[in-house]
Amino acid sequence: MENIMDDTPRTDSGWFDTRIENLGICRYSSPINEIKFIDDEQKILYDDTENSFRKFQSGEKKASFLELAGPRERLFFNPSKIRAAIVTCGGICPGLNDVIRSITYTLHYVYGCNDVLGIRYGYMGMIKEHGIPIMKLTPDTVLDIHEKGGTILGSSRGSQDVSKQVDFLENEGIDILFAIGGDGTLRGVRDIVSEVKRRKLHRSIIGIPKTIDNDINNVSKSFGFETAFSIAITALRSAHIEAIAAKGGIGLVKLMGRESGFIAASATLAQRDVNFCLIPEVDFDLEGDNGFLNHLLKRILRRDHALIVVAEGAGQKFFKKEELGTDKSGNQKLGDIGIFMKERISSFFKSKNMDITIRYIDPSYIVRSVPANPNDSVFAGLLGQMAVHAGMAGKTDMLVATWNNRFIHLPIEAAIMKRKKIDPQGVLWLSVVQATGQSMMTNI
Amino acid sequence: MENIMDDTPRTDSGWFDTRIENLGICRYSSPINEIKFIDDEQKILYDDTENSFRKFQSGEKKASFLELAGPRERLFFNPSKIRAAIVTCGGICPGLNDVIRSITYTLHYVYGCNDVLGIRYGYMGMIKEHGIPIMKLTPDTVLDIHEKGGTILGSSRGSQDVSKQVDFLENEGIDILFAIGGDGTLRGVRDIVSEVKRRKLHRSIIGIPKTIDNDINNVSKSFGFETAFSIAITALRSAHIEAIAAKGGIGLVKLMGRESGFIAASATLAQRDVNFCLIPEVDFDLEGDNGFLNHLLKRILRRDHALIVVAEGAGQKFFKKEELGTDKSGNQKLGDIGIFMKERISSFFKSKNMDITIRYIDPSYIVRSVPANPNDSVFAGLLGQMAVHAGMAGKTDMLVATWNNRFIHLPIEAAIMKRKKIDPQGVLWLSVVQATGQSMMTNI
Amino acid sequence: MENIMDDTPRTDSGWFDTRIENLGICRYSSPINEIKFIDDEQKILYDDTENSFRKFQSGEKKASFLELAGPRERLFFNPSKIRAAIVTCGGICPGLNDVIRSITYTLHYVYGCNDVLGIRYGYMGMIKEHGIPIMKLTPDTVLDIHEKGGTILGSSRGSQDVSKQVDFLENEGIDILFAIGGDGTLRGVRDIVSEVKRRKLHRSIIGIPKTIDNDINNVSKSFGFETAFSIAITALRSAHIEAIAAKGGIGLVKLMGRESGFIAASATLAQRDVNFCLIPEVDFDLEGDNGFLNHLLKRILRRDHALIVVAEGAGQKFFKKEELGTDKSGNQKLGDIGIFMKERISSFFKSKNMDITIRYIDPSYIVRSVPANPNDSVFAGLLGQMAVHAGMAGKTDMLVATWNNRFIHLPIEAAIMKRKKIDPQGVLWLSVVQATGQSMMTNI
Amino acid sequence: MENIMDDTPRTDSGWFDTRIENLGICRYSSPINEIKFIDDEQKILYDDTENSFRKFQSGEKKASFLELAGPRERLFFNPSKIRAAIVTCGGICPGLNDVIRSITYTLHYVYGCNDVLGIRYGYMGMIKEHGIPIMKLTPDTVLDIHEKGGTILGSSRGSQDVSKQVDFLENEGIDILFAIGGDGTLRGVRDIVSEVKRRKLHRSIIGIPKTIDNDINNVSKSFGFETAFSIAITALRSAHIEAIAAKGGIGLVKLMGRESGFIAASATLAQRDVNFCLIPEVDFDLEGDNGFLNHLLKRILRRDHALIVVAEGAGQKFFKKEELGTDKSGNQKLGDIGIFMKERISSFFKSKNMDITIRYIDPSYIVRSVPANPNDSVFAGLLGQMAVHAGMAGKTDMLVATWNNRFIHLPIEAAIMKRKKIDPQGVLWLSVVQATGQSMMTNI
Repeated sequence: MENIMDDTPRTDSGWFDTRIENLGICRYSSPINEIKFIDDEQKILYDDTENSFRKFQSGEKKASFLELAGPRERLFFNPSKIRAAIVTCGGICPGLNDVIRSITYTLHYVYGCNDVLGIRYGYMGMIKEHGIPIMKLTPDTVLDIHEKGGTILGSSRGSQDVSKQVDFLENEGIDILFAIGGDGTLRGVRDIVSEVKRRKLHRSIIGIPKTIDNDINNVSKSFGFETAFSIAITALRSAHIEAIAAKGGIGLVKLMGRESGFIAASATLAQRDVNFCLIPEVDFDLEGDNGFLNHLLKRILRRDHALIVVAEGAGQKFFKKEELGTDKSGNQKLGDIGIFMKERISSFFKSKNMDITIRYIDPSYIVRSVPANPNDSVFAGLLGQMAVHAGMAGKTDMLVATWNNRFIHLPIEAAIMKRKKIDPQGVLWLSVVQATGQSMMTNI
Repeated sequence: MENIMDDTPRTDSGWFDTRIENLGICRYSSPINEIKFIDDEQKILYDDTENSFRKFQSGEKKASFLELAGPRERLFFNPSKIRAAIVTCGGICPGLNDVIRSITYTLHYVYGCNDVLGIRYGYMGMIKEHGIPIMKLTPDTVLDIHEKGGTILGSSRGSQDVSKQVDFLENEGIDILFAIGGDGTLRGVRDIVSEVKRRKLHRSIIGIPKTIDNDINNVSKSFGFETAFSIAITALRSAHIEAIAAKGGIGLVKLMGRESGFIAASATLAQRDVNFCLIPEVDFDLEGDNGFLNHLLKRILRRDHALIVVAEGAGQKFFKKEELGTDKSGNQKLGDIGIFMKERISSFFKSKNMDITIRYIDPSYIVRSVPANPNDSVFAGLLGQMAVHAGMAGKTDMLVATWNNRFIHLPIEAAIMKRKKIDPQGVLWLSVVQATGQSMMTNI
Repeated sequence: MENIMDDTPRTDSGWFDTRIENLGICRYSSPINEIKFIDDEQKILYDDTENSFRKFQSGEKKASFLELAGPRERLFFNPSKIRAAIVTCGGICPGLNDVIRSITYTLHYVYGCNDVLGIRYGYMGMIKEHGIPIMKLTPDTVLDIHEKGGTILGSSRGSQDVSKQVDFLENEGIDILFAIGGDGTLRGVRDIVSEVKRRKLHRSIIGIPKTIDNDINNVSKSFGFETAFSIAITALRSAHIEAIAAKGGIGLVKLMGRESGFIAASATLAQRDVNFCLIPEVDFDLEGDNGFLNHLLKRILRRDHALIVVAEGAGQKFFKKEELGTDKSGNQKLGDIGIFMKERISSFFKSKNMDITIRYIDPSYIVRSVPANPNDSVFAGLLGQMAVHAGMAGKTDMLVATWNNRFIHLPIEAAIMKRKKIDPQGVLWLSVVQATGQSMMTNI
Repeated sequence: MENIMDDTPRTDSGWFDTRIENLGICRYSSPINEIKFIDDEQKILYDDTENSFRKFQSGEKKASFLELAGPRERLFFNPSKIRAAIVTCGGICPGLNDVIRSITYTLHYVYGCNDVLGIRYGYMGMIKEHGIPIMKLTPDTVLDIHEKGGTILGSSRGSQDVSKQVDFLENEGIDILFAIGGDGTLRGVRDIVSEVKRRKLHRSIIGIPKTIDNDINNVSKSFGFETAFSIAITALRSAHIEAIAAKGGIGLVKLMGRESGFIAASATLAQRDVNFCLIPEVDFDLEGDNGFLNHLLKRILRRDHALIVVAEGAGQKFFKKEELGTDKSGNQKLGDIGIFMKERISSFFKSKNMDITIRYIDPSYIVRSVPANPNDSVFAGLLGQMAVHAGMAGKTDMLVATWNNRFIHLPIEAAIMKRKKIDPQGVLWLSVVQATGQSMMTNI
């Protein structure tokens, strides 16, 4: 992965100097006597392995650095004169309200910026023709919102006409836009930034990565992911209890994870009764001596029950992409691997004349709609703060994230170039395989 | 309901004298100095209204009484010489393991009866041909089982050859059988009792009513029901959060309740965001000015989102029974009202050219597989104790239950003659309607 | 208990005819077509045992009846013209906000009464001199309050000058007062009613029994009690885990229960690791062969750890009442049995030269401050509705409660004459003793 | 902190070459076809800031590296011939059983080592004179232990005679010892290693850092910490609810944190109703214009209630160390700042003639005795695996931990040289101050 950062197109001023022209300086009125400001020279190594370090030293490779997030002493905007807005896009995810609350509070109490708007129903709310009213956000209106799941702003999928979006920023006088969303939303950020630059406007567009699947590139951890896999465990527990209650009982749970199996893998590690964990990153066959069905048969013969977890993006080779189409966001629709597996397992055991009972659970809405757990709540709150610090300092075309345990600024490009995935030979997957006792399930 | 008890066929020795021939007396070795034994003469009025009381006094009506459950001073069986067995049948339900644990503990520690068997996989486990091994139950093996959902014994649906079941009791030397299950299981108890009587055996068969739907006749409350509707709330909450996150968001949750809507109604009362609660006891139309869809339309136009709860037995008039068939237990299969409603709502709004987002949740396995909550755990534990007291006293052809806040013995017949249902004009439904604000949804 | 009701002083119009003079009739505007009104003639037997029934029939004893609660067709007040108020007194208890919410909603949506006030900080808020502002309660202000513990109105302990309280009702034009509280609060209701009668006013004063200890006489179940003992289990679990983690580990938990041990007993039944449960109703000695300490010693020698639950009102014989004084509500202060036991156990083992580790937990604030669990939430909501029905019908000097599984009207006097207690020879305590394996711990 | 690693005394073979003499090589029998082994050359930079990087390049500073944890291809021990043992020391902490379970499972299923012992009651269990029996640990005996809090092995405080401890290792034939504990335990590991070296034995002693306070130096995150602060929130919530229920209500909660306020700070960030958060790292005065009491007074006058969180190690300047003594582990005993604050606040308001109500909660046993939450459970499980990989590879005198988001081997010395603390000028504390709105509370 070492070369990613170097391969990425960079701005003239270099990779992480994402600041736009600096218009002024104003100290913010902190309640604390002293504060340790972060300056733009404070960076960390992107690749901190000894191996790379030796190459950096020998000049064989060039080191990339990530700018640390945090409060800046020099601000680009005058907090008391600007207007900020927040938009949430895509599927809901635990912690959205924490981020909204944190941005509003930080703008208000740390910077004294009281003009904060909530754009409703995602990017759709920026399109004048839809006539969707904007919300006013104040500490009072967001006081308790973190106690509920979802987003008080509402959300929607799909991109919108970027020209109309920038019209909206101009018409509404929005100086800083905080866009919370996944891959598609971040691409939207990039496009808005381009149009903003084309029009030579001074607008700061800050992305906050949201992906319940935890699959955004160069982002160590997404808010809501931990809550999601923790809640997913209840479905695994249920399926296990159902499985052992029936003779030949098979529990089958489909969990989120379109391209990466982090939720499935983590839930498997935390629940510990799973016998088979199937994820997009690891190929498997159904038929054949070493196919999944044969392994399942052996398990049932040996123990009379089994628990299977399948990530939604697993086993897509069993579907024809062209028959599935795309969703509103333009994502390739996935074949429903849960229903598919359920049917294949049923017919397999019917063909063997064995009486089994399958209990299939698809808990996705239940998983993604809960409030953030305390750890995610703290994390989402800090992300929101970092986003405000970045926005006030005039950063743009970037997102706030963590890398190597610190909050950093990441160029949009570095996040959307590809997906983060589980390494099938790494520690996490090794632990899963150890926990389930499953084998490689491919023939040859 | 007053006449139910009088109409029921009774045994010669009268309604509640369910004791079979008394063979001996043996005091049990309690750790307490004194114990208040219950004798068979301690009964409560079945119908305690003043209105009926006046008729009882005037001789216009004859009063029925229910025998109080509890420890008897005179036992029928010698605890140290008998063997007891437990069987769990039908779908799993929170509290099953609490009952199993309580029966085992009470037999062991209160009566000194150490010979307790667990029959595996329901009535199926009593059929020799299946070759299913029996479990030995001791305080050690059941120590922590109440902390998990489901049943450690396993379960199955459907009735079995009653003659083979009684053969099993004879072959295994089982003196007392505790059968935990719903309507079908209790009918099984009745049939086993008949065969036992026909063979002139001295066997005590005690039913323990299990119905997550809380719909057993003359049983105030079933264990597991409270846990079930409490957990169901999480699905309602999720659907609500999903609904408000989308423009035109509609949350639709199907909850258990084949013939009675207690879970749907109670969850609605506890969660309080529900706009429409549909149950088997209350008819509704889809089409027409006063039909459900029109009411839903008004709600969406007014508030942009809606939350609907539908019990699985609601709206069965929309299906053709003959096309649905029956399940293993011989129950009429129900049409899937959840999927049906989802499709009808979708096509209705499509026909109006309105863009809505439906989130459909069917959380049944998640609801029924959790461990009992503390209140249900205490209740299930007490039921198990009462069952043992009844069995040791030589009762048979009965179940233990609560009536008017006391534990009583109820003849099987009184439990299975019909279903308990919500009174659409009573206090519970009035509260639901008040909570949702829904109207009658029938066209005249 | 049979004679309680007959011994109680009754009003002229008889025990349960608590209606004050009827001024008018107005139907309430229900959203439902038909409603089953309850009339005042619908009553249930107070004592429904067969034994008493025989005596009622023979004329040996006179039957008492309890009026059923529920919506009345004839109202005393014109809902659109009156003002109602709610006050919460004493310690907080899960479900208070549910009752407040339910009263407000029922007045508003069922009766069309929009003038509802919240009196702040208990009876203190009725005393003009304190200058405490009153809250306006609307469906909007109470929308989500049931999701939080405590009471949005605030509370206080102690009685106030009843004359000033009635002045307050007159000055503020309050027609119906809903007073939610325990023993002392209900005595306050009685006193206010007397003063109202003396002044020949038409005011309805309705009590709603609140006691986390579940110890109000003739009240089957108090709201919040179930939530309380369910939460208390977490403290028991912690103490158990601490106890087994140390060599000679002793977990000691003090639970609420000034005069009755219902919380301690129910928590013990639900948690199942408790070895000793000490409650006010059951005497115990510390010293002596059969004293508690000796039993504890045997347990430690046998198993190396022990878990003890003590209700706050247990073992008060070890304190001198005159040294303890009374609290603001005029209740006798209790000796702190938790700290006392901790010290006595420590010194006992020190005297034996045995190294033990005591972990003492007093979780009372944590227990009583949680929101109601779903079952209590439903129950508290129904109680609130019943209170409104009673108030609108012009009832007074009464409380709403459940008896034999139905909602009824209970005269204040019947509730405050004595405390409900655990019967040491009854089924509940028998189960506890069976669960703990404890013996009688008195020396003769 | 950059110089820490360089200042630390190192072994001859260099900082992280903690391997003892390599006796052999044996591949472990993985169920997976391919596994990515980690070799000892895979390291990461200890200090990854750009600033330091420049100095490393210029030669101004010398870079330190941390060895990556993970499975090694070359093992030091023959898994099928060795015996391993686990010991847990100090206070209990969520996740201990997860670590025990993971070590046992990894030894058994990954390495085929079936000889695993559990030493009971901490280091005390290694002292022959105490006669404490050892437990045999198998996958069966540890199957479900992660579902309970505490440690199945038991624990104890304090150090033991190191010579006897090494005798124990020799007598019992223990090749690898996994010691799970905090600062004192890790010092114990160091001492055992010294004695092992002195005797020229081949024993691997691996530490696993356990500190609920999250304060071990150079350890990014301790298992159990997240669970702890998440559970602590319930106490904060209770205290808040109690505070707002009373006129002049003050909630005061003491949380764990002897030298570092991580739990108090994180709970404050997650709960968000806290007005004052007091931690060991930040000085505060009680008296004076800018003292805590005056700030509290202003808050009460303005809002009528307040919520205070105090870490147990805060405000120790108010106590005389010499009067407090030390505990069994030799730690300086702390003054009870919770009780102290409660009394000072009471007398302060009494002196102002103001009627307030303080509710003080000390939830420590409840916090530390719960099972690990899912995230901590996964993390503790991975730590256990890493410990086994390290032990089998012959590492010693080290602990497994995370640094910059990767699992690494850390020399004991680097962990125990000082405590990790909150930076009062850093991002975390800034967020806390922002969340509470508190000021610096020192005069001058």
